[in-house]
Amino acid sequence: MNQTIETILSHRSVRKFEDRPLTNEQIKTIVKSAQAASTSSFIQAYSIIGVKDKDKKKRLAELAGNQPYVEDNGHFFVFCADFRRHALIGEMEATDVTESIESTEKFMVAVIDASLAAQNASVAAESMDLGICYIGGIRTNIQEVAELLGMPANTIPLFGLAVGYPAQDTAVKPRLPLEHIYHEEVYQQDEQAYKKQLEDYNKEISAYYHERTKGKRSDTWTSQMAGMLKEPKRKHMKEFVERKGFAKR
Amino acid sequence: MNQTIETILSHRSVRKFEDRPLTNEQIKTIVKSAQAASTSSFIQAYSIIGVKDKDKKKRLAELAGNQPYVEDNGHFFVFCADFRRHALIGEMEATDVTESIESTEKFMVAVIDASLAAQNASVAAESMDLGICYIGGIRTNIQEVAELLGMPANTIPLFGLAVGYPAQDTAVKPRLPLEHIYHEEVYQQDEQAYKKQLEDYNKEISAYYHERTKGKRSDTWTSQMAGMLKEPKRKHMKEFVERKGFAKR
Repeated sequence: MNQTIETILSHRSVRKFEDRPLTNEQIKTIVKSAQAASTSSFIQAYSIIGVKDKDKKKRLAELAGNQPYVEDNGHFFVFCADFRRHALIGEMEATDVTESIESTEKFMVAVIDASLAAQNASVAAESMDLGICYIGGIRTNIQEVAELLGMPANTIPLFGLAVGYPAQDTAVKPRLPLEHIYHEEVYQQDEQAYKKQLEDYNKEISAYYHERTKGKRSDTWTSQMAGMLKEPKRKHMKEFVERKGFAKR
Repeated sequence: MNQTIETILSHRSVRKFEDRPLTNEQIKTIVKSAQAASTSSFIQAYSIIGVKDKDKKKRLAELAGNQPYVEDNGHFFVFCADFRRHALIGEMEATDVTESIESTEKFMVAVIDASLAAQNASVAAESMDLGICYIGGIRTNIQEVAELLGMPANTIPLFGLAVGYPAQDTAVKPRLPLEHIYHEEVYQQDEQAYKKQLEDYNKEISAYYHERTKGKRSDTWTSQMAGMLKEPKRKHMKEFVERKGFAKR
């Protein structure tokens, strides 16, 4: 196993960081790594906003549901779907690109582009012995986050990425069985086998929580998921996404 | 610069592979690396389908717009947004999860999850001296691709990933200027500065194509983008996505 794969396989989210900012050099390396990711037909449909300002991070933490690590970290990145530059290109090249950039297809392209870039940023940061945590919570009050970051039409903040020097050591969380996630030739539709895999995984997750919390917690993955999915969250998303000029058709 | 960052920064898409299949061990390492990526609230809302069968790869290549590297590679992965297991969990846990998994918010979650996993797979593969190419082309005839792979409700094939031993050496393609992609504190809305960056980048891209094609090609990035975005593509996407149970509300 090479060092890159070791870095990848030892990933765990870090939610407590030292009070030590990243250097500009580190930030640059992380952003350059993000940019090196593949991008759909070279479209580069994303942007990244870096937040250093203490007050702004504090406000972001409030908006994201009071996660302290949104405020206290070495650097906070926000990854955004972005067709603003393509809208400007439409003007520059006297071409009407509106229908295209407002399509569901292109919304997917921008979300995929931004995510590939973000994962490169994460792996790069972890290879430098930094820790990371994705922050989907910035979508809870997405309108306010977009305003705080001064984001124009044709852009959406998708998620945050807190990066910094780890001040905690957490265990790697076991993933679903490989055969549950990975199928060959066709999607495996055998419902009984599929449910059996989930039950086996439940035992593993339950034991993991039991050990990690010294017996305080032993919930299963399926109960966790059912609890989480019972109430739809962020019901504003469709309206917000469309208002920003994405997935309108 | 460490080896992981070197791997990341030297990425280029490979579109010609040796006729040499990946071993099961390599496939497993790549899938395990994919699984190690962060996942929104531990939801693991994606699946991966590996295709080895020659005839199936040939058919996929036709459906994706006759790209030969979809057929000729070491292994072909398809990354999918997937809430089927969560729909089954709804049954297992007697909880109605439908409204939640059909939301635009959860569509974004699944697309992000699958993309983070895919980029980990890509970096892992490249760290093993394999080459990769993302195939968005599988969305051109997405209904037929979904049928070919036997995909049920609550799943969508998002993109392919061709992996194999490189049989060509291509140059790293210059990305947009860092300051165009990366902003600090707020989104930079200065239109003039933004357009100037695009014009500078045009010169760089034009020179890159000129050199790579020995003078046959020297188009700019903005003209390339305008040409590509003139006609909306894959107009079926919204209807397909909703029919599969995603982003309905």
